[in-house]
Amino acid sequence: MSAAQAGPVLPDGVFSTDPATVDAHRLDRSGWVPEGQPLGVALAESVADVRAVLRHAHATGTPVVVRGAGTGLSGGAGATDGSIVLDLSRMNRITEISAADQLAVVQPGVITADLDRAAGAYGLRYAPDPASAAISTIGGNIATNAGGLRCAKYGVTRDSVLSLDVVLADGDLVTTGHRTVKDVTGYDLTGLFTGSEGTLGVIVGATVKLRPRPARTATLAAYFDDVASAAAAVTAIGAAGVQPAVAELLDAATLAAVEDANGRRPDRPAGAFLLVQTDGPAAEAEAADVHAVLGAHTARVAAAGDEAEGERLLAVRRQALPALERRGRVLIEDVAVPRSRLAEAVEEIQRISQETAVPVFTLAHAADGNLHPIVVVERDRELDEDVWAAADAIFTMALALGGTLTGEHGIGVLKRKWLGADLGERNLALQRRLRAVFDPTGILNPGKAV
Amino acid sequence: MSAAQAGPVLPDGVFSTDPATVDAHRLDRSGWVPEGQPLGVALAESVADVRAVLRHAHATGTPVVVRGAGTGLSGGAGATDGSIVLDLSRMNRITEISAADQLAVVQPGVITADLDRAAGAYGLRYAPDPASAAISTIGGNIATNAGGLRCAKYGVTRDSVLSLDVVLADGDLVTTGHRTVKDVTGYDLTGLFTGSEGTLGVIVGATVKLRPRPARTATLAAYFDDVASAAAAVTAIGAAGVQPAVAELLDAATLAAVEDANGRRPDRPAGAFLLVQTDGPAAEAEAADVHAVLGAHTARVAAAGDEAEGERLLAVRRQALPALERRGRVLIEDVAVPRSRLAEAVEEIQRISQETAVPVFTLAHAADGNLHPIVVVERDRELDEDVWAAADAIFTMALALGGTLTGEHGIGVLKRKWLGADLGERNLALQRRLRAVFDPTGILNPGKAV
Ligand SMILES: Cc1cc2nc3c(=O)[nH]c(=O)nc-3n(C[C@H](O)[C@H](O)[C@H](O)COP(=O)(O)OP(=O)(O)OC[C@H]3O[C@@H](n4cnc5c(N)ncnc54)[C@H](O)[C@@H]3O)c2cc1C
Ligand SMILES: Cc1cc2nc3c(=O)[nH]c(=O)nc-3n(C[C@H](O)[C@H](O)[C@H](O)COP(=O)(O)OP(=O)(O)OC[C@H]3O[C@@H](n4cnc5c(N)ncnc54)[C@H](O)[C@@H]3O)c2cc1C
Repeated sequence: MSAAQAGPVLPDGVFSTDPATVDAHRLDRSGWVPEGQPLGVALAESVADVRAVLRHAHATGTPVVVRGAGTGLSGGAGATDGSIVLDLSRMNRITEISAADQLAVVQPGVITADLDRAAGAYGLRYAPDPASAAISTIGGNIATNAGGLRCAKYGVTRDSVLSLDVVLADGDLVTTGHRTVKDVTGYDLTGLFTGSEGTLGVIVGATVKLRPRPARTATLAAYFDDVASAAAAVTAIGAAGVQPAVAELLDAATLAAVEDANGRRPDRPAGAFLLVQTDGPAAEAEAADVHAVLGAHTARVAAAGDEAEGERLLAVRRQALPALERRGRVLIEDVAVPRSRLAEAVEEIQRISQETAVPVFTLAHAADGNLHPIVVVERDRELDEDVWAAADAIFTMALALGGTLTGEHGIGVLKRKWLGADLGERNLALQRRLRAVFDPTGILNPGKAV
Repeated sequence: MSAAQAGPVLPDGVFSTDPATVDAHRLDRSGWVPEGQPLGVALAESVADVRAVLRHAHATGTPVVVRGAGTGLSGGAGATDGSIVLDLSRMNRITEISAADQLAVVQPGVITADLDRAAGAYGLRYAPDPASAAISTIGGNIATNAGGLRCAKYGVTRDSVLSLDVVLADGDLVTTGHRTVKDVTGYDLTGLFTGSEGTLGVIVGATVKLRPRPARTATLAAYFDDVASAAAAVTAIGAAGVQPAVAELLDAATLAAVEDANGRRPDRPAGAFLLVQTDGPAAEAEAADVHAVLGAHTARVAAAGDEAEGERLLAVRRQALPALERRGRVLIEDVAVPRSRLAEAVEEIQRISQETAVPVFTLAHAADGNLHPIVVVERDRELDEDVWAAADAIFTMALALGGTLTGEHGIGVLKRKWLGADLGERNLALQRRLRAVFDPTGILNPGKAV
């Protein structure tokens, strides 16, 4: 579709083939570079625009790559050859915030942090907090079922979605779910669209849960001799019946990279760093319980005296990715394992890194058993066979521990190869048949996800 | 299929055509009586038994009605003419409880309360607590996405299911999800099977989340002049940022029925009763906050001094259904509305009851906006046109308030008529095509749900 061809279906200024615009909408943050060129970018401003694009694409068999902010890490929003990029970032209105119902109605292009901020004016918050919250969209978060730091207590994006408006492959509009907390009327289509990575329909509106903003938080940081002790401490926190809001782990290499970036060199390097935050009315009491538990596993625990100090402790975690990005090009993986296998997983990743001589740094949402092994290669170096051999070993390890390929980033392009090994062929075949129900002609993000 | 015909596929003693056995497995608790007779009952003892039944049914085109404990309230487990009842109550082993992973692996026939009790030995609990927990199965809970009293804080059954083993219509076995907390590998089939009412496959195993058993609970009961004040109090509790574990409302008629059954007649009958329970490390502090909020809406608030007294306050809620059952035959409805519309919904139900002269009593999971309008008719009376006219008016009202037909009991047979009005035709058509992917020959619970 050229701009001219698009003329009849798309309002002026909505469809662009301008090379700079196309270029700005071609890639996500995974590092994956699709071959070829998209036809152009539709910068949709309304549901009607989205429907017009889909009707056109459906009639002409043109692939459509839906795009939120392009912060994805799996290649999902990468613009394949001959596709229309359907960008939703202009549909960024918060339509409603209801304090009484503790929910918001939003357009898909709303930036995650903007919603959270707007909810704050009502004493509420939008709980899902991917580290990309300042730049990602709610639509993208829903399409990837994004996680974040607070998942430990508040769950993933799915746990905050009540209802969706979705434009189907043929341009029809359906609504799933209701403006109610509970709902078993029919199959859970809301859940099915959540995490569907732009392959089942285009999310053009969402009703999401908001929760009371906790009045208090309390933060602790601990340095351990090794990952096994840190992981044991995480398990012990759970066994003590405490539900932390955040529990983030850095392995030794990642911690060293942060310290390096800060120009600090501790006398006695630690084997692992753990950051724990509690929140809610018992935040301090829970933090005291956590402190006692951590103390049984390491002597090096710091408790923040106030929220500002808590922020300073959190900084170590926040600085991890930037510190790694200073070192070169990063490939961020995202396996999940049963919580009890966390230490094994981190140690296995370290072993794989040594054996393959590919540097891998590990960050983990520890309470969820969700690990981000981060491969760092020289800038401008291609992700070559070595890197993929290391990634392959990591995926294989995660599956062997009863885990899975991706905890929160999605399959996109980069993890497709391992899907069959993870799901099994019958499960995968079912998923493909489901996909065909929603998109019989295969125009939605072909070659991606299942 | 006679027992003889079943011989080749089903082990001895597993398939029964004994009339008493068949009779004991024909109905659920909805009051719906299917026409005709099932062929017999397969009392499966293993996954292999289930697979054999499904392979046979698939090959012969025989309908299969899956059954847990038959406590359903929508007709889902009612045994239709010519069907095989596939009863799973013998598959009742808890295979594993992992304290470190805070999860359990169970067979489908495990009784809900048995799992909760077993988890208790590890300081954990299974959070979903339908009022039928002592008699319903985990498989049935998952197949209906059951709710319960603690949903207000801990969510519905779906929020506790990590992974499922499912025998498909053709006898194949698939596993969905993982033994991990987070998982975005492929579409959310776990969520799709949850609430699918025996129409997409037979759940033969489940990995479910367990949560720390709260050390403390605190309980309050309040009597209000009218439902509007009670509902306003519930909203105010939310606005105060408190997350109650339980918030149950009884309307005036239900409260009077309980008092009647207890032989008590208060001088000043109340317009509504509200029971609130908080739990967790800040249970008392949260209860104090709730107390203050309730006090602004009524002068009649009682706070339990200890857990035993809390149990006594809860008794009013527990006695509601038995008190109504003493009065006649009950039909339990299950609409959900946005939380802010709770008072309107209760008042509308009272108006409908007056206008139709059909007695309707309302119980509600107030924090979720999930109402159980309970129609009571003379014992042995058929549920005639009047009753269905009242039910119809209630459903229409719920939809008009932005709500839905069923919050936790499912569609089954009894709510099918209103499905199109609730979901819209395109949504419903999609659901039916999804169903056909899983069950192309239509043998799984035909005539039920979507
Ligand atoms: C620095 C950084 C930190 C990150 N931290 C986290 C984290 O903590 N947790 C986490 O889960 N992720 C994280 N991510 C990954 C990424 O931010 C998330 O996947 C996010 O949800 C993507 O949102 P987006 O709007 O950028 O979507 P995009 O990247 O534009 O799209 C992602 C996928 O969703 C589809 N899609 C987008 N919008 C829609 C829509 N409206 N309808 C249908 N399909 C749609 C696309 O086709 C694509 O397949 C991080 C990324 C970065 C760069
Ligand atoms: C007194 C009383 C109180 C109740 N309170 C509540 C409540 O608070 N909350 C609530 O949600 N419900 C409640 N219910 C309704 C009922 O208990 C629930 O729906 C429960 O989940 C049904 O479980 P079951 O094992 O009895 O399932 P059944 O009634 O046997 O079956 C229910 C449906 O699930 C299907 N099914 C059952 N097992 C499987 C399986 N393994 N695989 C696939 N499909 C299956 C059946 O085909 C049927 O469609 C109550 C019922 C009673 C009688």
